[in-house]
Amino acid sequence: MTLEEARKKIKPLDEEKMETARKRWDSIAKPLHSLGKMEDLITQIVGITGEVKVDIGKKALVAMCADNGVVEEGVTQTGQEVTGIVADNFVKETTTACVMCHQCGVAVKPVDVGMVKDTTARTDLKVMYGTRNMTKGPAMTREEAVKGIEAGIAMAEELKAQGYRLLATGEMGIGNTTTSSAVASVLLDQPVETMTGRGAGLSSDGLTRKINAIKKAIALNEPDPSDPIDVLAKVGGLDIAGMAGVYLGGAALQIPVLIDGFISGVAALVAAGICPQAKDYMIASHVSKEPAAHLVLEKLGKEAVLHADMCLGEGTGAIALCPFLDMGATLYNTLSTFDDIHVDQYEELK
Amino acid sequence: MTLEEARKKIKPLDEEKMETARKRWDSIAKPLHSLGKMEDLITQIVGITGEVKVDIGKKALVAMCADNGVVEEGVTQTGQEVTGIVADNFVKETTTACVMCHQCGVAVKPVDVGMVKDTTARTDLKVMYGTRNMTKGPAMTREEAVKGIEAGIAMAEELKAQGYRLLATGEMGIGNTTTSSAVASVLLDQPVETMTGRGAGLSSDGLTRKINAIKKAIALNEPDPSDPIDVLAKVGGLDIAGMAGVYLGGAALQIPVLIDGFISGVAALVAAGICPQAKDYMIASHVSKEPAAHLVLEKLGKEAVLHADMCLGEGTGAIALCPFLDMGATLYNTLSTFDDIHVDQYEELK
Repeated sequence: MTLEEARKKIKPLDEEKMETARKRWDSIAKPLHSLGKMEDLITQIVGITGEVKVDIGKKALVAMCADNGVVEEGVTQTGQEVTGIVADNFVKETTTACVMCHQCGVAVKPVDVGMVKDTTARTDLKVMYGTRNMTKGPAMTREEAVKGIEAGIAMAEELKAQGYRLLATGEMGIGNTTTSSAVASVLLDQPVETMTGRGAGLSSDGLTRKINAIKKAIALNEPDPSDPIDVLAKVGGLDIAGMAGVYLGGAALQIPVLIDGFISGVAALVAAGICPQAKDYMIASHVSKEPAAHLVLEKLGKEAVLHADMCLGEGTGAIALCPFLDMGATLYNTLSTFDDIHVDQYEELK
Repeated sequence: MTLEEARKKIKPLDEEKMETARKRWDSIAKPLHSLGKMEDLITQIVGITGEVKVDIGKKALVAMCADNGVVEEGVTQTGQEVTGIVADNFVKETTTACVMCHQCGVAVKPVDVGMVKDTTARTDLKVMYGTRNMTKGPAMTREEAVKGIEAGIAMAEELKAQGYRLLATGEMGIGNTTTSSAVASVLLDQPVETMTGRGAGLSSDGLTRKINAIKKAIALNEPDPSDPIDVLAKVGGLDIAGMAGVYLGGAALQIPVLIDGFISGVAALVAAGICPQAKDYMIASHVSKEPAAHLVLEKLGKEAVLHADMCLGEGTGAIALCPFLDMGATLYNTLSTFDDIHVDQYEELK
């Protein structure tokens, strides 16, 4: 499925089925809407899938791994080789996100969408060997960015065919808070300083270098804020492109997709810029400690359930929400109604 | 264990073991403190138990069921018989909280600490057949309130003896947001209006009746804000007393205890009023939709991880946090360190 095909396939949520889901929640023996966002998210999933019964049993984390040319500018604390090491560990299923996935029954799918070296991760969707240094020119051509997005769409298609019912987005890529801050700064029309944090633990000097690199890249490449693909290509990265594709592919195929933290949120912004309707297929998980994370969620019109000051990436925040959704699905599918327990239903209030 | 014995047994957390836990988190292959509150909570559990290895496998929800005389004043949407119906359903393990407990491996322990009728729930810790109407006099005598607290301490002792490693507090009691708002209003020195919400779904008229009943009860009984047991006895309830006892017993026995929502948070306030050190043994789970819930957490010095607008009670919010803690424990106990994966550790920043 091409990006254009995916975009055309994305339709509004099934409002009628969502109304049925809301009625089911209200008939369950508990005060009205007393499960709050748990009810809202399950109702959203009903609208996404168009199925009144909720089945999110089979879940997968798509971990988009890519390298960023801007790392040359000294914007990170660790070297680029760490991307590949962690990608290998994703395949061995030993990273933090993998351990969490095992605990809550989520499959792990690492994808090399643009690392500088090949690793044990699959390379069939690889666009290039790392992006170019955005302080010296565009990180990617428009075609490369689209190819990155289509890698994500391909993953959504493959996982849908394998029976997965819910996807989580994750990433690994040294330098990817730099690209994310650049993209967010342009798309949200915010000062670079507001959108930039210490990432995996940068010193104050490093933070200054990071802010300067982003400013230089934006000034040099002049990305068009009304064209998210242009922004992605010029100052973004392939992990962001890949995750944007997972959101768009998920929306086209009626699969809910979990947003992780800041980087994954920026990818969601790109996807929403390409097709606003795609937002309805996204589920926010947590508010990352990265300073701009809440601004990204606000722009997406999302409120996250988890406020845990996490900022590890890899999809860890998205995975942390999975048990909450599983509980919601079980309650929705199985709880007794007021009729069952012979108690009058609570009344709706004005 | 009497209340006085429990109070004397509560000691500071094991700071040395917590330092070891923090070092372990920092040695794990991830950016420093990037798991945020997940790291903090697991470190707190190490301090509580005094054991560097974290074992919270065996968990129980203590559901304190009690009736409140103030229900006569028309402060609730449903009748008092619902307390007993839900208590029976707790024994049958069919309530909302029970379904969630099954999903995440938490045992359910309903306790009749003061319902108007006997049900299938255990009655050996029952203090009385419902409290008195606090708008006409004290809800309980001081002795009855202490007996309620000691019922919770007894539950903590019993569950500790059975090998439980983490307790969650929950409750069932029609009218218990009324008593909770009354206790919170006095202990936090806040206007009754600020501390009072619609509970399980009260109309605007009902809300006015509720506020008036609380004001009348406080004016009539003149609870002493500096004496939490006096406040609990005069305008509180036995479910609040019982949960306060679980916090104090848990603290005395070095078991972490999860705070659920507003009512359970008010019980935590009472426990913290009796013994401030007990706060260190409490873990906040979610911010309830009840308007005063965040003020209660603030007073306790706690930040909750879950922001889901839940307000169902029964312990549902506390249970919803259990998988997050389980993930934290697994990561802490099993993750690779930087040494294992041959990557330099991230540096601490100033």
